[in-house]
Amino acid sequence: MSENKKLVQDITERSEDFAKWYTDIVLKADLIGYSGVKGCMVIRPYGYAIWENIQRILDDRFKETGHENVYMPMFIPESLLNKEKDHIEGFAPEVAWVTHGGSELLTERLCVRPTSEVLFCEHYKQIVSSYRDLPKLYNQWCSVVRWEKTTRPFLRSREFLWQEGHTAHATAEEAIEEAERMLDVYAGFCEDSLNMPVIKGKKTESDKFAGAVATYCIEALMHDGKALQAGTTHDFGDGFARAFDITYTSKDNKLEYVHQSSWGVSTRLIGAVIMSHGDDSGLVLPPAIAPIQVVIIPVAQHKEGVLEKARELEARLKKAGRRVKLDDSDNSAGWKFAEYEMKGVPLRLEIGPKDIEQNQCVIVRRDTREKAFVSLDKLEDSITELINALAKGIYDKSLKNTEVRTYICKNIDEISTALTEKGDGFVKAMWCGEEACEDEVKEKTGAGSRCMPIQQEQVSDTCVCCGKPAVNMVIWGKAY
Amino acid sequence: MSENKKLVQDITERSEDFAKWYTDIVLKADLIGYSGVKGCMVIRPYGYAIWENIQRILDDRFKETGHENVYMPMFIPESLLNKEKDHIEGFAPEVAWVTHGGSELLTERLCVRPTSEVLFCEHYKQIVSSYRDLPKLYNQWCSVVRWEKTTRPFLRSREFLWQEGHTAHATAEEAIEEAERMLDVYAGFCEDSLNMPVIKGKKTESDKFAGAVATYCIEALMHDGKALQAGTTHDFGDGFARAFDITYTSKDNKLEYVHQSSWGVSTRLIGAVIMSHGDDSGLVLPPAIAPIQVVIIPVAQHKEGVLEKARELEARLKKAGRRVKLDDSDNSAGWKFAEYEMKGVPLRLEIGPKDIEQNQCVIVRRDTREKAFVSLDKLEDSITELINALAKGIYDKSLKNTEVRTYICKNIDEISTALTEKGDGFVKAMWCGEEACEDEVKEKTGAGSRCMPIQQEQVSDTCVCCGKPAVNMVIWGKAY
Repeated sequence: MSENKKLVQDITERSEDFAKWYTDIVLKADLIGYSGVKGCMVIRPYGYAIWENIQRILDDRFKETGHENVYMPMFIPESLLNKEKDHIEGFAPEVAWVTHGGSELLTERLCVRPTSEVLFCEHYKQIVSSYRDLPKLYNQWCSVVRWEKTTRPFLRSREFLWQEGHTAHATAEEAIEEAERMLDVYAGFCEDSLNMPVIKGKKTESDKFAGAVATYCIEALMHDGKALQAGTTHDFGDGFARAFDITYTSKDNKLEYVHQSSWGVSTRLIGAVIMSHGDDSGLVLPPAIAPIQVVIIPVAQHKEGVLEKARELEARLKKAGRRVKLDDSDNSAGWKFAEYEMKGVPLRLEIGPKDIEQNQCVIVRRDTREKAFVSLDKLEDSITELINALAKGIYDKSLKNTEVRTYICKNIDEISTALTEKGDGFVKAMWCGEEACEDEVKEKTGAGSRCMPIQQEQVSDTCVCCGKPAVNMVIWGKAY
Repeated sequence: MSENKKLVQDITERSEDFAKWYTDIVLKADLIGYSGVKGCMVIRPYGYAIWENIQRILDDRFKETGHENVYMPMFIPESLLNKEKDHIEGFAPEVAWVTHGGSELLTERLCVRPTSEVLFCEHYKQIVSSYRDLPKLYNQWCSVVRWEKTTRPFLRSREFLWQEGHTAHATAEEAIEEAERMLDVYAGFCEDSLNMPVIKGKKTESDKFAGAVATYCIEALMHDGKALQAGTTHDFGDGFARAFDITYTSKDNKLEYVHQSSWGVSTRLIGAVIMSHGDDSGLVLPPAIAPIQVVIIPVAQHKEGVLEKARELEARLKKAGRRVKLDDSDNSAGWKFAEYEMKGVPLRLEIGPKDIEQNQCVIVRRDTREKAFVSLDKLEDSITELINALAKGIYDKSLKNTEVRTYICKNIDEISTALTEKGDGFVKAMWCGEEACEDEVKEKTGAGSRCMPIQQEQVSDTCVCCGKPAVNMVIWGKAY
């Protein structure tokens, strides 16, 4: 146990310094490495394998909902970026500019895509002409660049990996429907595959995407009570279509503008998983995205028959479709325990001479550390049960954290008091719809408007700030 | 047939203008679209689906051979790129430079990666310290940028998608072994999955990668007799390790430099497929990478039972693991025939009322246009047979083209005569090893050295150029 203890003590405790704990985890679980460019990280094999699992599940869901993958260039000419006024105002301050190709000065600067709306618009203008060409349901997996001042691995980096869906539709209703559908896909993914409860909502006017008619989002509450925006979808109406002149001939032979949507999630989701489920021993990974779901650790592996049996179990679990790793290295069992706890492997399977004698093994859950003695005759089924129990367990724990840290407030003082006395969290409070009130709440309490939940509640009749009649319930909180 | 004919006539014939034929195909088969930046293309859903299939097969092979995926930043600080002298000289003239982040001038220029050797080196220096850390077998899928003057879709573009493997080993032998192993993986993939014969060889000194000890390559001959480099692998020895000071402590406690390799293939493979197998009706796709392997076209689809039967066959083939599409649109059968020929779908399945009566369907091979009447009782097996026959058929055809267009020459005049009289092709001729001779052959015949094949032949005793004793047989040719 000494090695185990030593390793665990290497991480800062969450209660001591949550930000430091987070950085310790991303480094010690071998998720990232730093590069020579601030805010640009190396995603190491273990971190990238998590992303590949996220990609695979989401990509299947996108394809099931009729989307096709494409690839757009990474460069956007300045004049193209300038075409939609709100969009350029939103992004210009944070793009990276290419000015030279080899030793030649370019005649026009190119920005490295911060997002690809304008590229999709340019392409849709070329390929859409009739109602028969609609809808276009495209998605791309790529990296984008935003020149942020403050950066943190996964949460806010200058380059990050993501997917961006971009669609074009015949009617305004279809574009809204698409933005709502993909919000449901994201929320379903977060709940089912990341075991992370989220709140679906709509952003206020001041907080919506540059160029959007409406921005929808999913918000999750992290262990420390801060909110994290885990994904967004946007309804563009025909704003981009007008700026880029993307029209089609309708069934009754009229020229109409298309209506568009876009939607994206990124490697930020990995940050969300860390801060939702991690503990003082390291990561706790949702089974659906864990690169290793079961790690097999032979006990007294030099004894006759132990390694053979371990290999047999490994083969059985692989055959059952599990991602499994047998660690037969000469590191001590204690070291291995700590290592795979740090890496958040959902289940640890221990097998030694005594277990073999009794035709059983020991399985330890990463989240609760509960030990189960499992008959080898029922191994596959027991693993499935334990995996499901863990997935439900970490979901319930996150949900409870969110519930305990959700405060209903009727005025600004109540917000300040709740956040001070109970700690950061979600505040449910009514709002009159005025930006001035939104700003004042943020200024006085530090909690900004996260979203107007789709499932509205009437927690009072008047605006939490000005006391005038309320229009919406807003979720407020401090955000990553 | 009139629509069919019309569409087909829309493409330039190969014999008339091969380059124009190529461009017609990439556009009319909906593989790409142009963007506003020269040399940067939009890869459309059909083209991207081909790439996804290539990725999936290769990624499986990489993982089987022990490699792990990672992601490195896209930006390389100028000082980092400068660290290995040969490398910077090779790439500096063709990189895109980022000089501004938002409105701020950067203190150091960043280049958009043209390849990522230096980034991997920087990372390996951080994570390798002991022989226990070796080998590192990493790969990444990403896009890279090279500011080419002349560009052509897939073949030479300023931004392109690829994979780059980067490995670090304890010994020189292991690095060479890795470069050779991955060359075999690439060659196997080209032959098995792209049905394209390739020659494995080593580049001459003057033609090797910037910073490499040795560059290996696979070369394929296109339909027009020009050579295409389809993939390369590099042995770096300890050159980069010395420049970047990447050392490890060996088992006997000595400080040693690591030895490295890198290897890559790109979307260029799609260009290779087009030019190897395509014909005057469009693409001909290898079944392993075809987004649609079988297109089902109902004949007289308004007649009772036809669409139902077509859907039943679609379901059966999907269940059998085939990528299948049923086109029940109201376009004419003739239009559909031409459309899927253009898109290179390997098999066309026609089903009409008469076929149903006789419990059969008609299957037409894309490459030979041979018609087969197939009993519906044996549908799945017949499809497998026809798919395999087509894969073998297009491989054999490409191989024959390569063989017919391979000329053995003993002096420069023979090369010129062969290329003039028989058309472009591979020239097998001996070489003394002097760069001056290599240059002279190219200058006088237009054919450069493509590679020194691994399987050497002794086609004469003396250098094709200077007549001195020969050291190697070289394959010469005009190249894409």
